[in-house]
Amino acid sequence: MTAKLTVQESMQLLGEQAKHAAGIMRMADTNAKDATLRRAAALLCRDKNEIIAANALDMQAGREAGLDAAMLDRLELTSARIESMALGLEQIAQLSDPVGEISDLVFRPSGIQVGHMRVPLGVIGIIYESRPNVTADAAALCLKSGNAVILRGGSEAIHSNRAIAACLRRALLDSHLPQDAVQLVDSTDRALVGELVRADKYVDVIIPRGGKSLIERIASEARVPVIKHLDGICHVYVDRAADLEMAKTIAVNAKMQRTGVCNAMETLLVHAAVAEEFVPALVAALSAAGATVRGCARSCVLVPGMQAATDADWDTEYLDAIVSLRVVDDLDAAIEHIADHSSAHTESIVTADYAAGLRFLREVDSSSVMWNASTRFADGFEYGLGAEIGISTDRLHVRGPVGLEGLTTQKWIVLGHGEVRS
Amino acid sequence: MTAKLTVQESMQLLGEQAKHAAGIMRMADTNAKDATLRRAAALLCRDKNEIIAANALDMQAGREAGLDAAMLDRLELTSARIESMALGLEQIAQLSDPVGEISDLVFRPSGIQVGHMRVPLGVIGIIYESRPNVTADAAALCLKSGNAVILRGGSEAIHSNRAIAACLRRALLDSHLPQDAVQLVDSTDRALVGELVRADKYVDVIIPRGGKSLIERIASEARVPVIKHLDGICHVYVDRAADLEMAKTIAVNAKMQRTGVCNAMETLLVHAAVAEEFVPALVAALSAAGATVRGCARSCVLVPGMQAATDADWDTEYLDAIVSLRVVDDLDAAIEHIADHSSAHTESIVTADYAAGLRFLREVDSSSVMWNASTRFADGFEYGLGAEIGISTDRLHVRGPVGLEGLTTQKWIVLGHGEVRS
Repeated sequence: MTAKLTVQESMQLLGEQAKHAAGIMRMADTNAKDATLRRAAALLCRDKNEIIAANALDMQAGREAGLDAAMLDRLELTSARIESMALGLEQIAQLSDPVGEISDLVFRPSGIQVGHMRVPLGVIGIIYESRPNVTADAAALCLKSGNAVILRGGSEAIHSNRAIAACLRRALLDSHLPQDAVQLVDSTDRALVGELVRADKYVDVIIPRGGKSLIERIASEARVPVIKHLDGICHVYVDRAADLEMAKTIAVNAKMQRTGVCNAMETLLVHAAVAEEFVPALVAALSAAGATVRGCARSCVLVPGMQAATDADWDTEYLDAIVSLRVVDDLDAAIEHIADHSSAHTESIVTADYAAGLRFLREVDSSSVMWNASTRFADGFEYGLGAEIGISTDRLHVRGPVGLEGLTTQKWIVLGHGEVRS
Repeated sequence: MTAKLTVQESMQLLGEQAKHAAGIMRMADTNAKDATLRRAAALLCRDKNEIIAANALDMQAGREAGLDAAMLDRLELTSARIESMALGLEQIAQLSDPVGEISDLVFRPSGIQVGHMRVPLGVIGIIYESRPNVTADAAALCLKSGNAVILRGGSEAIHSNRAIAACLRRALLDSHLPQDAVQLVDSTDRALVGELVRADKYVDVIIPRGGKSLIERIASEARVPVIKHLDGICHVYVDRAADLEMAKTIAVNAKMQRTGVCNAMETLLVHAAVAEEFVPALVAALSAAGATVRGCARSCVLVPGMQAATDADWDTEYLDAIVSLRVVDDLDAAIEHIADHSSAHTESIVTADYAAGLRFLREVDSSSVMWNASTRFADGFEYGLGAEIGISTDRLHVRGPVGLEGLTTQKWIVLGHGEVRS
């Protein structure tokens, strides 16, 4: 047995192993990476009972620690959930490999040809909570894009995560790739998270997944670049030139198709010119779908008895069947409300007016801006990325849904014939 | 007169003004931005004498402070240098505007069309030393790409920078754009730099330009994302299948065409199979061009009397007419040497062998990787960016020469026809 490592030594070891593995993964061919993912899927299914037994330890500890029903549900692994995880790996294996792609190769007056080649980021740190399926999903995306990954799941899921990571590492071994391309931080010591996010010598990017407080803490401590997701306070604006049937359908879908998600609508803005006709019908439709509507003063006049919104409502991500409603004077006022209150995640305009739609698309500064579509489309699968590791509300490197391409970068390549600079 | 602001209050004021200006610049049309740059160019020429007088104050203070000749040269503004600055602005006005560009718009099975729109980053902080021309160049690139900029030049150039910034602000005013799209930190208080790099509420990215110690300090203090440039330890590898005449020409150019720059070659690697034939001729050519060569043990045998390289040489950016030379066993050894010692800036292979060239392109993980070309081509103008604000040795967001596109990001746009998610 070796002596127990300090937190710093543990991080150094993880980091060195990851960096070494990343150097090999960077050049791994597509077949080997895909074989690893398919093999891992098979192992997850083969070892299903062991994984469920490991998960049972976490579930029992969770119950004893008094986790609420929603947290326990997120933590639980069933046979169906494990099969779904395995299917996810198979699907990622089917995506095309972004690594090595050469683009924009042009001749320059000097005679050289200049272009870009897509390459992996290197070592990716994923810090997440509760859901053990992230262990498989996130690792698979990192591997497919040629990276090494250091996973740090929540302590409440440590047994489940260990069992899942073991399948991935075994699959790497079976495909003759370095096992350390997937490493699980096998410690519940929070100090290690602090070391991980400051390990810019080893780690190229940190992707936190979880609640806002986790993400804010990581962003404030990190020295490694972070790709993060904060709030999803999404807006739908119903313009005076909207097809009101379409607007109602989009509003109900954007709020109610799934309420606990970041791309659900939280605030609905309605142009004053159509408010009198539209607001009562809209509130009726939302209520019928199960939503509670909190209205501004002008909309409360149109729907007597409706709950009044307070200032705090405009800045609240409900993640629930609640929506705030505000009547605005015009498109300018809608864009201004969004600039003041949006989390820059996703906003949609409903209008048949060309000029209004183009202005909204250009002037609203969010990661996704839509025209006549439900905000619920802001999603890696819907956008054609095949899978997503999260949705970035940052501005640099990658914005909105992050798929394989977001886990890569580009280098410049130059093809010459002996050219020199004069 | 108002009371003197604290450093925090000064930063808050700068930040709020910049953010407000950025909101307008983001939507400014191309003509207005180009008119601003042309007007600023005209004002620089018109006010040339005032700028030279301001610069004289800096030069005198510099001499009194004992700045060395190289620093004084970087600081000095002459009539020709001011005209060259103005010409730079005219050239940036001629570049095409990246903002608003829509790409990759595709239909998805749901019926929506999904694509990208290019948008400005927002507020850019530039921290730089000595050269007052950066004030004009950097600001112009930020304006053309629709951003607001906060400039913090060196205290040694404060009078020159003020005079140049005044021309830019006047040009913004004359073009009906917000003056605060260009703000100069009009204080030599170093604490303000600390505030600026932590002002993530206002500033979207920091670009430091200057010596390594400045950049390292900023990167370690920053909470705002940083696009930075560290070392340029660039390599040329002469393969066994190289055209040796071509290799000699490239090596001499890569080292000697200009020595004080980041894309100059610092280390030359030569395949053992051609060392005996090539090294003596190469060393003669480099010496004839004025370079001092420091050789490994194997190369010193081939060129009696050559200065011996020490271990430190492989990790040194000379920025001078000095080059280290190492004989390596094969392509693998060359790639390994580069992985161990390169700063991941620019490396070049000289070879006529297809497989060796492709392997080098793929396996060397630097911001520019070249085949049969001088490392001196790693440059925004040579790559066709029109101008560059610097060369990034980071991996995320932008890598290598950074032009207008590197000062922008993308948002997703969705064009629908009433689609909702099912």
